Amino acid sequence: MDLKEYIASIKDFPKEGILFRDITPLMLDGKAYKFACDQMIEYAKEVKATVIVGPEARGFIFGCPVAYALELGFAPVRKPGKLPRETVTVKYDLEYGSNELSMHKDAIKKGDRVLIVDDLLATGGTVDATIKLIEKLGGTVVGAAFFIELEALEGRKLLEGYDVFASLKY
Amino acid sequence: MDLKEYIASIKDFPKEGILFRDITPLMLDGKAYKFACDQMIEYAKEVKATVIVGPEARGFIFGCPVAYALELGFAPVRKPGKLPRETVTVKYDLEYGSNELSMHKDAIKKGDRVLIVDDLLATGGTVDATIKLIEKLGGTVVGAAFFIELEALEGRKLLEGYDVFASLKY
Repeated sequence: MDLKEYIASIKDFPKEGILFRDITPLMLDGKAYKFACDQMIEYAKEVKATVIVGPEARGFIFGCPVAYALELGFAPVRKPGKLPRETVTVKYDLEYGSNELSMHKDAIKKGDRVLIVDDLLATGGTVDATIKLIEKLGGTVVGAAFFIELEALEGRKLLEGYDVFASLKY
Repeated sequence: MDLKEYIASIKDFPKEGILFRDITPLMLDGKAYKFACDQMIEYAKEVKATVIVGPEARGFIFGCPVAYALELGFAPVRKPGKLPRETVTVKYDLEYGSNELSMHKDAIKKGDRVLIVDDLLATGGTVDATIKLIEKLGGTVVGAAFFIELEALEGRKLLEGYDVFASLKY
């Protein structure tokens, strides 16, 4: 199944000069969406993940089915003010703009083998911040799985030393 | 399995007077999270859904596993400016504040049997807006599934004439 057929490429979104890869056509096709999730599930098994972590909102799109299928816990990474209990927070730079991300302090236990799942690897800022949150809490990041990798933005460089999986590369 | 054991109740979040039901402990327990998703999957089968629709971000938490497990498409409902192609938008009132939600125009086709999935039914504003979006696009809402229903807020009243499922009631 050529999953690239299910990706729409939108010029100048969300701002000029950005070629946005839109995954909503893939999500709308039940077979293609399942195929994409199943690739991540296979990867999660290979790295022996015990917890799945995904940044909101699009990290939930692939991360939640992976957690469901493997009967693993899922810990969300959210913007500050969204998680109601005690959190850890990091600030980081984005492909466009900057951001802060938080996790609940009790989301990760020492010894957890954590797989980070997100839809897109661009500059790697979001996943790098997520790694920092997980490691602050004593977890071991056993891999990072993305549906799409934008190779020209060299996000993998920031993730040196970590195992990275991507279904589609542009 | 008593799923209420996995819900944290947080006083005065996000503001005074609100008792926030926090589902993150449930999500972090792989067995409990799967059990909760499986209840929604059974409901989706009963209503013969052909498409799953979920509002960001927490609608993805249950909606995406339901779509995955049944090999159905998933259409996200998002805040304006997040979806890159042509959208329909509605404005609505929230339990606290107001909001606008959008869907891609091609997310729903005439004849689609749509199940709306979200984590929480409070006043029903979000799901009511989502119903309006789906019906504008020609879809038939065959049900709305929530993990938690806050009965005192009477969201079901707003949903009269629609089939509503909730795993937990408070």
